[in-house]
Amino acid sequence: MPERKIDIQDPFAGYTTQQKQQLYEALAELYSENKRQLFDRLVQYRTRHIAVVLEDIYQSHNASAVLRSCDCFGVQDVHVVENRNQFNPAGDVAVGSSKWVDYYKHADIHSAYNYLHSKGYRIVATLPHENDTMIGDLDLSQPVALVFGTELTGLTQEAIDGADAYVKIPMYGFTESFNISVCAALSLFSTTERMRRDTSIDWQMNDDEQLTQKLHWSLQVIRDGEHVLEQVKQRLKM
Amino acid sequence: MPERKIDIQDPFAGYTTQQKQQLYEALAELYSENKRQLFDRLVQYRTRHIAVVLEDIYQSHNASAVLRSCDCFGVQDVHVVENRNQFNPAGDVAVGSSKWVDYYKHADIHSAYNYLHSKGYRIVATLPHENDTMIGDLDLSQPVALVFGTELTGLTQEAIDGADAYVKIPMYGFTESFNISVCAALSLFSTTERMRRDTSIDWQMNDDEQLTQKLHWSLQVIRDGEHVLEQVKQRLKM
Repeated sequence: MPERKIDIQDPFAGYTTQQKQQLYEALAELYSENKRQLFDRLVQYRTRHIAVVLEDIYQSHNASAVLRSCDCFGVQDVHVVENRNQFNPAGDVAVGSSKWVDYYKHADIHSAYNYLHSKGYRIVATLPHENDTMIGDLDLSQPVALVFGTELTGLTQEAIDGADAYVKIPMYGFTESFNISVCAALSLFSTTERMRRDTSIDWQMNDDEQLTQKLHWSLQVIRDGEHVLEQVKQRLKM
Repeated sequence: MPERKIDIQDPFAGYTTQQKQQLYEALAELYSENKRQLFDRLVQYRTRHIAVVLEDIYQSHNASAVLRSCDCFGVQDVHVVENRNQFNPAGDVAVGSSKWVDYYKHADIHSAYNYLHSKGYRIVATLPHENDTMIGDLDLSQPVALVFGTELTGLTQEAIDGADAYVKIPMYGFTESFNISVCAALSLFSTTERMRRDTSIDWQMNDDEQLTQKLHWSLQVIRDGEHVLEQVKQRLKM
């Protein structure tokens, strides 16, 4: 599981872009050319301009479906807040997508929001009953972290109070809310499609970030990746 | 369960719009004014311009989530083909939406397609790997029936061959398909939003259809509705 705790040392931190390129060339020798081409292609669609925050998702099949949607829409970062519920992506629903998306665990919603604010994100809570901005009208000029709550109780008051803005998805029926995984998918579809079409938004990872991402993906497909990486670093005298 | 078999007599068939209005006034006496206002408001968003076809959905929680999304987006008709799997909307996921959406059972995909063609629908299959039209570019000038397949095997060859067009949802990740309920929600969101904004599309039900719809909804909220309807008809000498 590529659980990337924010306080843990990134094994690629401190290296120059050129050194990362060298590491990538060395690691890519250890898996198929097809996979390398896939990494090279998909990383261009990857974004951190939009991120996802999940607060206390009860049903792991829902949480895993959200991870799957993030991967499908190229959203790299998922922040999980575990006030009460242990989050364990269910293999059958995530269909392996949790290998390709980074998720960060936070002890509570305040830590998550503080972290995201420090990274320049505007925090946007999705609320079905708030008569605020429709998802299709959400301003995307600044990086956006979309927050989704539990199936049963919705977002906690802290999660609502701490948000910078609120959005809803247009609804026309008797049912007053979407399934959480549907809500997340619709929000991501609407925002990422708009983001990709808007040439004024600098949503792609830069070259260095793309390389780092491909290195992380490489570790996912190499057996005993962390250990192999240390050997490669020694061989390349890094 | 408002299972409306297509060969069963509609209890409101043969009545004039004026008579239906009379029936509606009489039935609406039997439930709250709030409910009546809800019916009057929501029926304006209801559409048959877009319909849904589900082929052999295995997991009833997925099928029910699709019904819920249909209700949310105002899509009235869901056609279910039961080649192999018995369809039973799971109460907890549909959250009562199956009361408000009509679903029609068909014995096989050919009957479903024949029926829909006879009603003027263009049949559009959703295929993740087809390099065809993106859902956002699908022509909506004619009524559209969107077909979704099973989680495991996708659409059957018959369902694919019989379709008039194919669409896919843009995907940018490692995962090569969406969860079926997510796929349906995204397709409905994309098409209904576009439909509502397009003033050249006559997507609303006409006055008579809206009344019929409200009569059907009335039967859902009146205890022993069918029986009460017969009494009201007798009283009004219809």
